[in-house]
Amino acid sequence: MDEKPRSGCPINLALEVIGDRWSLLVLRDLLLNGKSRYQEFLSSREKISTNILADRLTRLEEKGVISKRDDPENGRQYLYAPTKRGLDLLPVLVELARWSCNYDPNVDKTLPNVKQLKTNKKKFIRKIMSRFEEA
Amino acid sequence: MDEKPRSGCPINLALEVIGDRWSLLVLRDLLLNGKSRYQEFLSSREKISTNILADRLTRLEEKGVISKRDDPENGRQYLYAPTKRGLDLLPVLVELARWSCNYDPNVDKTLPNVKQLKTNKKKFIRKIMSRFEEA
Repeated sequence: MDEKPRSGCPINLALEVIGDRWSLLVLRDLLLNGKSRYQEFLSSREKISTNILADRLTRLEEKGVISKRDDPENGRQYLYAPTKRGLDLLPVLVELARWSCNYDPNVDKTLPNVKQLKTNKKKFIRKIMSRFEEA
Repeated sequence: MDEKPRSGCPINLALEVIGDRWSLLVLRDLLLNGKSRYQEFLSSREKISTNILADRLTRLEEKGVISKRDDPENGRQYLYAPTKRGLDLLPVLVELARWSCNYDPNVDKTLPNVKQLKTNKKKFIRKIMSRFEEA
């Protein structure tokens, strides 16, 4: 997995880690939708396939963006969580969301995060960050 | 190209438009590296292939993120430019770059944009935006 990076451009380097939509949707589920289990990611509305999900979880863990531990409720499952490095991708997710809110009529404005995000971006980011930093 | 979106989540909707690394690298070249021609995108250090480049340019234009016009210096070429909608993706690129600057030792710190970005994010975004808004 430790390919040589294609360039030292910081945008490219970030995209080499999380530059595909499914990785970012898993991160969204972890950071914004309170999900932490394989089956929960699988049940998201975008219908990620099991093989892509398994691949992205492995990759994100290898890249230090997420971590996993045994699920105390079920020893054959894992609980996933963002690392500090993963949590610090929240501003990327927020800017993607803001862009759609400004331009895409398909945005579901009833989603709770959408309302909060539109009201105050900084406060929204702080709230999410503090939720994980307390944990 | 106008598939039904997989969900109304604004993060998903943005990723359905620009959720692949090559689209974002083309945008980076347009917004931050002063590139506007096919051959210029092709010469970037990440070595995008011609078929992916052609596909992404078409897609980004269809999605209203970039526009093209005939190149006055060569009638068989186009000059590409970001639309307002494309320009408004600058904060996404900036947050990706900031993340790498914080975490990735492979970042080339001699790149001029890297220095400016680390000094003052808001000023950096304003400077880039104004460059295109004047045009």
